[in-house]
Amino acid sequence: MDTDQPRLSTRVSRLKSSLVRDILAAATQPGVISFAGGLPAADLMPAFPLETIASPALYQYGCSEGEPAFRKAVANWIGETGFDVSPSQVLALAGSQQGLDFAAKLLIDSGTPMLTEAPTYVAALQVFELFGADIQTVELTPHGPDLAHLETMLEKHRPSCIYLVPCFQNPSGACYTPEMRTAVAELLDRYRVTVIEDEPYRSVALDVAHPMLPICAQLRHSDWIYLGSFSKILWPGCRIGYLAASPRLMPHLVRLKQAADLHTQRPAQAAVAHWLNSGQKEADLQNLRDGYRIRRDAMQAALTRHFGELAEWEMPRGGLFFWLRLREHRATCADLDRALAQNVAFMPGEAFYPGQRQGQQTLRLNYSCATPQDMEIGLARLAACLTEETCTA
Amino acid sequence: MDTDQPRLSTRVSRLKSSLVRDILAAATQPGVISFAGGLPAADLMPAFPLETIASPALYQYGCSEGEPAFRKAVANWIGETGFDVSPSQVLALAGSQQGLDFAAKLLIDSGTPMLTEAPTYVAALQVFELFGADIQTVELTPHGPDLAHLETMLEKHRPSCIYLVPCFQNPSGACYTPEMRTAVAELLDRYRVTVIEDEPYRSVALDVAHPMLPICAQLRHSDWIYLGSFSKILWPGCRIGYLAASPRLMPHLVRLKQAADLHTQRPAQAAVAHWLNSGQKEADLQNLRDGYRIRRDAMQAALTRHFGELAEWEMPRGGLFFWLRLREHRATCADLDRALAQNVAFMPGEAFYPGQRQGQQTLRLNYSCATPQDMEIGLARLAACLTEETCTA
Repeated sequence: MDTDQPRLSTRVSRLKSSLVRDILAAATQPGVISFAGGLPAADLMPAFPLETIASPALYQYGCSEGEPAFRKAVANWIGETGFDVSPSQVLALAGSQQGLDFAAKLLIDSGTPMLTEAPTYVAALQVFELFGADIQTVELTPHGPDLAHLETMLEKHRPSCIYLVPCFQNPSGACYTPEMRTAVAELLDRYRVTVIEDEPYRSVALDVAHPMLPICAQLRHSDWIYLGSFSKILWPGCRIGYLAASPRLMPHLVRLKQAADLHTQRPAQAAVAHWLNSGQKEADLQNLRDGYRIRRDAMQAALTRHFGELAEWEMPRGGLFFWLRLREHRATCADLDRALAQNVAFMPGEAFYPGQRQGQQTLRLNYSCATPQDMEIGLARLAACLTEETCTA
Repeated sequence: MDTDQPRLSTRVSRLKSSLVRDILAAATQPGVISFAGGLPAADLMPAFPLETIASPALYQYGCSEGEPAFRKAVANWIGETGFDVSPSQVLALAGSQQGLDFAAKLLIDSGTPMLTEAPTYVAALQVFELFGADIQTVELTPHGPDLAHLETMLEKHRPSCIYLVPCFQNPSGACYTPEMRTAVAELLDRYRVTVIEDEPYRSVALDVAHPMLPICAQLRHSDWIYLGSFSKILWPGCRIGYLAASPRLMPHLVRLKQAADLHTQRPAQAAVAHWLNSGQKEADLQNLRDGYRIRRDAMQAALTRHFGELAEWEMPRGGLFFWLRLREHRATCADLDRALAQNVAFMPGEAFYPGQRQGQQTLRLNYSCATPQDMEIGLARLAACLTEETCTA
């Protein structure tokens, strides 16, 4: 009698088992040198300030919008980017991933046309696909999208919204130039496309060559949702992020928050607000960036030794990843099992595209968790795997 | 140019401004004696054990399912109800409200038929309506649903799922008898209805007259999602709850969790697991129940003095609310503004029904936050408002 299946939503049939999740499970086996994950370096984060969460008042229910002190501190923090938002435009989130869930609920019906960069953040694709978006992509260069392609897609596809990660994107490391930001904002304004701008890596800026004014700050007509995270700089285990949004979207987003989980946990909002208002912030960020820069440079050196002939890449100026394109045509996905058998893990680039058979020659390598010694050993092994003759049955 | 509206999902147009939310905002004005809210008594909760969350390892990203120690402790905690579940069936949540979001995502398309009790929890209605459920209701008595009505609705409506709160329901205080639990489980099994059972108030049991074996524990064919909360007994500001589910629903629910917010915050999972495994648990719960019993009894006495002629009610044996039905036909909603003008707030019963013009003669009164003196003053005032002649224009 138990063989009859429960009646599930059509939505959930679109929620595929994630290639990334499967690889990450394999990558945590003992002895594996993993460049597959994306964990930030916990040793570069400040210690959690327990003394800031002692007040019993923090343990009662709170309000859906977030703590007033948190919203104010976050508005100031966003202001440091050059983007002027008021605390009333800020919503506390259980990590910026939650903002993607809300954006999808707010903007996407089954079949709603939208655009993303290609490649793009895989867990964003997962949410947009769950809600049935008709996702089309715009080719990404290291300095932003191909503008002619973007305009073609806007004209042809008439998307309701677009998802952009303009600072040190996961996976590609791309960072939009100032000119690109202005040009993209103008185009999106012209087509009245609602912008979902996601900035988890903004603070992991290692060699900033130019200003990074958010695209949302440059919109004059389009609505927007601007997502931010503390998980790369402070205590990801606490799940604290935020969004800011254009005023007419805010009432909907607050109700979506209430329906989703009533409000964001309060003690960590207090701890983050304390840190944002403290004199320690700049020194902590400097320490974090210095640590990441050393690891990034070590990875760059090891890659040059082992992948110089094999692949091309731009050294990332921020974020946590190198993005490589093999010079020879070869599907990196097919090499994954062999690499895991050799105790080295990486992420095939295909995972970061919504369509089939895109990005086959690419791979993503995380640099924030491996020691220099493991980088040397692991990249040598990986290069060997990626040059070995494959069976062509 | 800004007058053109953004293209929003059809879903979000179903997300109405909540009457409850508006009333709660009015009820927090200074000087108002409020029976409108549902805040648990913070002074009856144990202090948050900061020393249990000092490990730096808790501040890195965690896994979507939840901490192994938390899942194990929660499986044992559920086991105390007589319901045997394994840790692998437990998912850590950012409060049990999040489980409603996942249940809706998993089970409900626009137009999917479902059943709820009438009245029922208002924020559950909000989520099910957001996802477009075709909600039909079953009349609730103080001891469970009208069984004949339930069977009629199952036969006629063929619901995919049903939402039940069998222990000290918010708002009605209803608590299913053992016979009712068995009969309901048999009916739902026969019609293969997926059961969403929500138990936020189970631990606030003041005079338990009978066993309260969960309905999900008695299903043999139907799938199920069993939701639990710590927010009435421990630190609601931390947003920690859980679900357990039938094995074939779990993989979907874990992916929904990952897509929604990656995972539940880890420090509070550690604190809750510590409390669940501590020798302090029984004494803390006893203290909590003793405190609530005193307040419940004070409210019962004050109600008897001021509402004895005016309304009928069953004294709740648990949970945080009294549910009154006026003897005379009168829409309590129409009295709300006058009550607020008199600095006393309550929740009109209408808010707890999905349809229009149901429950007009009812009202919900919270007893956990007012002092005995405020109960006396506030209920006298409220009784006067509810007997005053109204304009019949």
